[in-house]
Amino acid sequence: MELYLIRHGLAGTYGSYTHDADRPLTEEGVQKTKRVAKRLYELGLRFDLIQTSPLVRARQTAEILQKVHLSEQLQQSKDLAPSGNLAAWLDWLQTWQQAERRLAIVGHEPNLGEWAEQLVWGEARQQLVVKKAGVMGLTVPDEGMLIGRCQLFWLTPPRFLLND
Amino acid sequence: MELYLIRHGLAGTYGSYTHDADRPLTEEGVQKTKRVAKRLYELGLRFDLIQTSPLVRARQTAEILQKVHLSEQLQQSKDLAPSGNLAAWLDWLQTWQQAERRLAIVGHEPNLGEWAEQLVWGEARQQLVVKKAGVMGLTVPDEGMLIGRCQLFWLTPPRFLLND
Repeated sequence: MELYLIRHGLAGTYGSYTHDADRPLTEEGVQKTKRVAKRLYELGLRFDLIQTSPLVRARQTAEILQKVHLSEQLQQSKDLAPSGNLAAWLDWLQTWQQAERRLAIVGHEPNLGEWAEQLVWGEARQQLVVKKAGVMGLTVPDEGMLIGRCQLFWLTPPRFLLND
Repeated sequence: MELYLIRHGLAGTYGSYTHDADRPLTEEGVQKTKRVAKRLYELGLRFDLIQTSPLVRARQTAEILQKVHLSEQLQQSKDLAPSGNLAAWLDWLQTWQQAERRLAIVGHEPNLGEWAEQLVWGEARQQLVVKKAGVMGLTVPDEGMLIGRCQLFWLTPPRFLLND
């Protein structure tokens, strides 16, 4: 099973909205995220499901990914919000845990990098640099415990993904 | 400072040469490595130095990288051979440790993945998937200890780097 963790694109300045959850992608963020989405499609990636944080900037990112046909299914999970809880989310993930599945989640930093570290090395040390619209790829064991048992096969900022 | 760790390209079958150190890249390995090298150049990467393991398959890889002008300087280090020692190599690296430097090393698995893990998380657990002609990018602190103090900003197999 493969799990792709994707950070939302460039959003408006923090503090510019009364509710941070409403902060949308900037126009630049939309354009760059579209280019990343197209590139992922060109690379042959397809997901059984994209799950996203309910915050606007994440939902917009996930919708862009869906629009280029990276996945037919899109759902929200409050566990992917900045206040989200990895243990709760893993309970859900385990219901999907089987060979051949490919899932993508769209969320926030520092959560995504810390979750990846916990899944791969068993603890979070904030040593992964996850840029906006950046992507990580993990292989997930088909059964059993997840923490400390996944492998990292991909981590890229948009600048090493796009053609210009 | 940035450190790029690059695994040699596809080489002949293990055991097909009396001395494993002589095992060269296959024709397919040469072609794919050339495409990776050109892509790294297109992405704007340039190195102050490429250091390579003395084994033929690594040296060929490093020469391909140099030929596309990723670096003017190329040198060998026995510390990058499969039997190489991270502590010895770090003694050398520290003589280069300063801001704005960009180094690339060409070597072997499992060493490269394990070294990256030690530099980033302090210990090797073989949880990084480093494909042949794959690339990792680490930021290295400008001074002080290196083990456990670097950050990983890039890890890619060739399939997510090339255009087809």
